[in-house]
Amino acid sequence: MSVITAQARKFGSTQTQDLPLAEECAVAMSYDGTTQAVLMASPADLEDFGYGFSLTEGIAAPGEIAEIAAERVADGIDLRIWLHADAGQRFLHRRRTMVGPVGCGLCGVDTLAEAMRDLPVATGECVISASELDAAVAGMDAGQALRDATGATHAAGFFVPGRGLIALREDVGRHNALDKLAGALIRQHPAGLAGQGAVVITSRVSVDLVQKTAMLGAPVLIALAAPSSAAVAAARAAGIGLAARARSAARAEIYAAPDRFR
Amino acid sequence: MSVITAQARKFGSTQTQDLPLAEECAVAMSYDGTTQAVLMASPADLEDFGYGFSLTEGIAAPGEIAEIAAERVADGIDLRIWLHADAGQRFLHRRRTMVGPVGCGLCGVDTLAEAMRDLPVATGECVISASELDAAVAGMDAGQALRDATGATHAAGFFVPGRGLIALREDVGRHNALDKLAGALIRQHPAGLAGQGAVVITSRVSVDLVQKTAMLGAPVLIALAAPSSAAVAAARAAGIGLAARARSAARAEIYAAPDRFR
Repeated sequence: MSVITAQARKFGSTQTQDLPLAEECAVAMSYDGTTQAVLMASPADLEDFGYGFSLTEGIAAPGEIAEIAAERVADGIDLRIWLHADAGQRFLHRRRTMVGPVGCGLCGVDTLAEAMRDLPVATGECVISASELDAAVAGMDAGQALRDATGATHAAGFFVPGRGLIALREDVGRHNALDKLAGALIRQHPAGLAGQGAVVITSRVSVDLVQKTAMLGAPVLIALAAPSSAAVAAARAAGIGLAARARSAARAEIYAAPDRFR
Repeated sequence: MSVITAQARKFGSTQTQDLPLAEECAVAMSYDGTTQAVLMASPADLEDFGYGFSLTEGIAAPGEIAEIAAERVADGIDLRIWLHADAGQRFLHRRRTMVGPVGCGLCGVDTLAEAMRDLPVATGECVISASELDAAVAGMDAGQALRDATGATHAAGFFVPGRGLIALREDVGRHNALDKLAGALIRQHPAGLAGQGAVVITSRVSVDLVQKTAMLGAPVLIALAAPSSAAVAAARAAGIGLAARARSAARAEIYAAPDRFR
């Protein structure tokens, strides 16, 4: 577990005690030797992170990744991802023509269009019942060892009707938790499983979490907290069933694709 | 307020109701016509956002900004910031030599060093008592209209001993809330006030929130939730008094610069 102990004291006390903290570490996502992004993350499940980030950010499908190696360097971790030739060429071309939404030297109008990218429409057949939603939420609550120790992390899980919560990842960042979950899913399970279940997240729902769910190919997103307006609009456009404030089915609110819940 | 109404239904119901959602919108930070970053944010307090982001990211001090204009465009808001000549030259030079941690084409080692930047050491004299901490937290709780309506936002406030909570900003993103607070402070109050009080945030503490607090020049950071390991290390290095899990002084834990609490 990514836990570090630090000395702290209660307010007004001079006595220190050791308290567990969630480790947070800068992770550079480097493709073929060039850094695409630096993310502050829990330094665990790094291969899952590399596969998941590559998929949900549209950089490379799992079969296009030749190798991932995590190197500890002075200021963090350099996650070195090597692509097969075709994907490497595409990555280089994309960098040359448009690096991405941040720091790319384009004007605001072009970069905003890139940030609000079109999403694939969910085709999976998954439908979630009230008792399944409650089981998914209970599974999330039981599986968060890092949160239990530190109180400083979010989690993302994947629930398949009939099979239960088959994967869960934690991270100091909610986006990272979802990327690590995506990586774990596509590495450990057959292609197409993402279309048969629901992503479950412990956090609020911003639009980027819906974008990542769509890129993974999951047709349902269940969130314990509230969504933003842009998240609801994106889920509707991508045909993703969105249940939010979903600490239980009795309290959950359905914001998009209500046919995906019964 | 940045609130949008959306139709939702309870699980198992076919009856829809109107529910308030926090608006989330892509905001491009553009300097002299070139976009530096795109942030998903609540579309309010945009001038504060521009001034605060420029300061906490080390791009421009308030006096170096000639004009800020927010333009609604197709996919969001282009926040057009125009710099005075010297700052504009520095910005251009910095873009040419090193664009920043994201998408800059450098290797992981260089970009990680940039992400874990050295911070100015806090010089302000502020010391917070237990009753002042409780007053700051109570002020935060009372001032979050957007959270009360939507449940989907974080807030950052600024508390000055003897004056109370003098500013508060809310946003769907916790980093944005802190940037907007920083902008509000430096626009509405005399230079140097930041050194005389405490930043108060409703969220967990990741390292970037400590970095922004240090760039603002505030010597104390009070957070309602838990810190990460990197946040504690950064607060200690920058001499910032860090109280976390601080829903009350009785429960607060002091992780850095304990002399700043009495």
